[in-house]
Amino acid sequence: MIQRTSSAQWQGDLKGGNGSLRLGSGAFEGKYSFGTRFENATGTNPEELLGAANAACFSMALANSLSQGGHIPTRVSTTATVSLDKVADKMTVVGIALVTEAEVPGLSNDEFQKVAEATRSGCIVSRALASVPITLKATLK
Amino acid sequence: MIQRTSSAQWQGDLKGGNGSLRLGSGAFEGKYSFGTRFENATGTNPEELLGAANAACFSMALANSLSQGGHIPTRVSTTATVSLDKVADKMTVVGIALVTEAEVPGLSNDEFQKVAEATRSGCIVSRALASVPITLKATLK
Repeated sequence: MIQRTSSAQWQGDLKGGNGSLRLGSGAFEGKYSFGTRFENATGTNPEELLGAANAACFSMALANSLSQGGHIPTRVSTTATVSLDKVADKMTVVGIALVTEAEVPGLSNDEFQKVAEATRSGCIVSRALASVPITLKATLK
Repeated sequence: MIQRTSSAQWQGDLKGGNGSLRLGSGAFEGKYSFGTRFENATGTNPEELLGAANAACFSMALANSLSQGGHIPTRVSTTATVSLDKVADKMTVVGIALVTEAEVPGLSNDEFQKVAEATRSGCIVSRALASVPITLKATLK
């Protein structure tokens, strides 16, 4: 079993308070606040971390599946847009939109779309986020 | 609606390839690989990003709920340990363990535990990760 531990601290109330978070690897520490999460202040927020996790997992998993099928990709580039909206008066992650572009020598678009779609729902992070509708637009370059 | 977009790129196959990811805010860019994700190489990985998202959301949400109840916390500190293991031959996020410590002037432990437990399952990121069992150990300092 692999375990990864990150941490976060908050001081004070919601709007007047402030937080900081740290990735377990130490690769990043940053501040977050009501303003960085729900407004346009400069800084990180939990939703962009979820998006980065999903985009990173998807790109790696798609590259792996394509390679296992005999087509090692030159590049898989993915953006994940996490949408937050009120549902029954609670702020909720209502969707994640994955948009991926891949350069894959010698692969047909049909085969690419099949593998990409399987990765959309099947990658490790997408399965952890299965409560959230995840869409995919995949383009073979 | 609030939207947050992060991105990631992968080049090559699973074990010989390498990736990079970027938070939408620009607060962090980092490299990841098979080694940083499934072995002990130095760098980030999607699971610690999920953990940071959950710890950050939980700490902020717990502080908010406590404050709404009339007890503004001096500090809420949370770690999130994300466990990855094989399930039916697929690497899977099998659990997230939240451990939180809070300094909250004038609050009883019973009331604290009640609010912390509601936040465990109710915070925005925990609801997005509802497919994963999330445990909580909460300590009032």
